[in-house]
Amino acid sequence: MSGERPDEFAIIERYFAPLAGEGAFGLRDDAALLGKPDFPLVVTQDALAEGIHFFSQDPSELVARKAVRVNLSDLAAKGAVPTAISIALGLSDNWEESWIAGFAQGLAHDCRQYGIAMTGGDTFRSPGGTVIAVTALGEIRTGEYRSRLGADDGDCLFVTGTIGDGALGLLARRATLGPEDAPEGLSQLQLETLQSNYLLPNPPVHFADVVAEFASASMDISDGLAGDLEKLAAASGFDAEVNIENVPLSDEVTTLASDPALLSAALTGGDDYQILFTVPPDNVEGMRNAAAKAGIEVRNLAEVHSGSGKVTFLDKDGEVMRLGSKSWNHFA
Amino acid sequence: MSGERPDEFAIIERYFAPLAGEGAFGLRDDAALLGKPDFPLVVTQDALAEGIHFFSQDPSELVARKAVRVNLSDLAAKGAVPTAISIALGLSDNWEESWIAGFAQGLAHDCRQYGIAMTGGDTFRSPGGTVIAVTALGEIRTGEYRSRLGADDGDCLFVTGTIGDGALGLLARRATLGPEDAPEGLSQLQLETLQSNYLLPNPPVHFADVVAEFASASMDISDGLAGDLEKLAAASGFDAEVNIENVPLSDEVTTLASDPALLSAALTGGDDYQILFTVPPDNVEGMRNAAAKAGIEVRNLAEVHSGSGKVTFLDKDGEVMRLGSKSWNHFA
Repeated sequence: MSGERPDEFAIIERYFAPLAGEGAFGLRDDAALLGKPDFPLVVTQDALAEGIHFFSQDPSELVARKAVRVNLSDLAAKGAVPTAISIALGLSDNWEESWIAGFAQGLAHDCRQYGIAMTGGDTFRSPGGTVIAVTALGEIRTGEYRSRLGADDGDCLFVTGTIGDGALGLLARRATLGPEDAPEGLSQLQLETLQSNYLLPNPPVHFADVVAEFASASMDISDGLAGDLEKLAAASGFDAEVNIENVPLSDEVTTLASDPALLSAALTGGDDYQILFTVPPDNVEGMRNAAAKAGIEVRNLAEVHSGSGKVTFLDKDGEVMRLGSKSWNHFA
Repeated sequence: MSGERPDEFAIIERYFAPLAGEGAFGLRDDAALLGKPDFPLVVTQDALAEGIHFFSQDPSELVARKAVRVNLSDLAAKGAVPTAISIALGLSDNWEESWIAGFAQGLAHDCRQYGIAMTGGDTFRSPGGTVIAVTALGEIRTGEYRSRLGADDGDCLFVTGTIGDGALGLLARRATLGPEDAPEGLSQLQLETLQSNYLLPNPPVHFADVVAEFASASMDISDGLAGDLEKLAAASGFDAEVNIENVPLSDEVTTLASDPALLSAALTGGDDYQILFTVPPDNVEGMRNAAAKAGIEVRNLAEVHSGSGKVTFLDKDGEVMRLGSKSWNHFA
C-alpha cells in the first residue's frame, strides 16, 4: 500500500493548497505573510517527532532549541526577525520531569538568545512518542517579504553557512548511539563537532534583514541543498548549474566528501537550516557588505537563467554529478 | 513514579510561565495578545492526539473540524474573530490517503464556514499515532482583549450554550465503539445527538465581538465547568456560588443528570468549548441584546464577589454538591 501513497508535497498540493489564504503562496512557501501593510507579520510552523527528527536519547535542552531553530531558519529566509513562539508539546506516557526541566531550560536559552517571547501553547499526552510543534511569528523590519518566486534571469544564487553538516552529523550521531560505524577519516573531535551540528542547528537568524533588503527570492534549506534548490528553481522559473567547488563545506564534511556516497548525502540529506537565495547583480555588493556586518558567511553558487527549474551539479572535472534521491522524504 | 509527577498546570507554572512574553499573562490565559495597538492580534494553539482527544475510528472530516474548533473557542473567549490557522499534522505510519482527503474536506468546510485562511503548517511522520496541532490567529474588531483577570465585585457570571454535552457525548461514543454500556434513559436519536456533540463541538465563534465589547473577564470551558470556573475565580479573585438549576443543560444531559454521577461528569468532564464570562451590571442589558442578535444563548450562573477563588455548586435543595475530580487532567 505504501507504494501507492502520495509523498508530502503531493499531499500538500492535492489537499491543502486549495485552502491557502492570500499571503500563503498556495502553501508552497516556507511561511506566510499576514497582517496589515504597516505591520507585516510572518508565521511559520514546523514540528519534530521523537524517533523521526530526534532520538529518544538526545538531551531535551537541545531538542527544545532545535525545535525553535528549525522555525527560525524559515523566518530568516523570508526576511523576518523572530518575535514570538507558541509550542504544542505532546509528552509520551513515560515522560520524566527532568526531561521537561531540560526542555524548558533550552527554550529559555534560545528565547533569550534571539529575543523571542513565548505566547503560550499546549501540553498534552502523546502516547506514541514525544511530539513538538512550534509556531513562530516574526516581523519584517526593513525591506520586503521574500517568497520563492522573485528570481530573475541573471540573478546570482547564494547560500549561507556550510552544507551537509546536519546530514553527516546524523550519521555520526547514529554511530554514537547504535551499532552503526562512524564515518571514517575523522578525529573524535571532528565526529563530535559533526554530531553537534545535527543536534543543534545554527540558522543565520540575523540574516533576516539582509534577505528582506537585498534578495529577490529565498528559502531555507531543510530537505537538502539539491532538492531545495530544485524547488526554488521551479518556483521562480530558472535553471542553474552549480559547480561542486562552489558549495561551501566545513572541514569535517570536506574530509568525508572524498567518499562520493557521503558527498551525495551532504547535498541531499537535509538538516542544514541555511538560507538559499538569489540576488539581483546590482544588489550583490550591498548584500555582501550587510552579510559581513552581520558576521554571516555567504557563498556564490551560480548565476541563474530563465528556465524550467532544471538544476545540475557539476563535479571538479565539469562532469554532471548523479545524486541519489534529491531530497529528504518525510514519509520514507 | 507517575504519582510524583506534576500535572499539566504545575508543569506550565514551574517551567514555562517564566518564559512568557508581555501579552501572554504568564501563560495562565487561553491565548496571548500580540501586535500593535491599532492591530491587536490574538494567537492560540491547541493540539489533539489520537487515542487521547479522538478515537482512531472517528471520521477524519470531523477530527479536522474539531481540531480547528477547539482553538476557535479560545479566540472567541478572548474577544477575537478567527482569521488564519496553521496546522502541524503528524501522521501515524499506517495512514491512508482517504483519511487525509476527509481531513482536508473537514478543514475546507470550517475554513469556509468561519472565513479563515490557512497559512501553512507542517506534515510529518508521527509513528505512535496521529497528532494535530493547530495554531489559530484572530483579530479583535471592536472592544478589548478579555483576559481571565478583569472580573469585579458584583459582576454577573454568564455561560454560553449548554454544559456537559461533550463529556456525556464521550460516554455515548465509547458505548458505540466498544464494550461499554450506553448511558440509560435516552432514545437512540438522543444518544446520537450526544455523540455528535462530542465529535463536533460547536463553539460560539460569533460571540467574540460580544465578549470584546461587554465582558470584564472571560475564558473558554474546555476542562469542565467546575474546574474552569475555579481557574477564572482564582485569576480574577472572586468567589461564586452557583445554583445547579442555573446551569444550562440540553434535554439529553437533563435526562441523564438524574444520575448524580452523570451530573458530576457533565460539570467536570470537559469538551464543552463554551464561554464562561463575567459582565459588569451596567453591561448586562447590552450584552444580552448583542447575544440575542448573534443568535447565541447565554445563561446567568451567579453574581461574583471579591474573594479567594472559592467556587461552590448548590443542588436543588440548596445543599453544597460534592463533585469528584473538578477538572479533566490531561495527563491522568
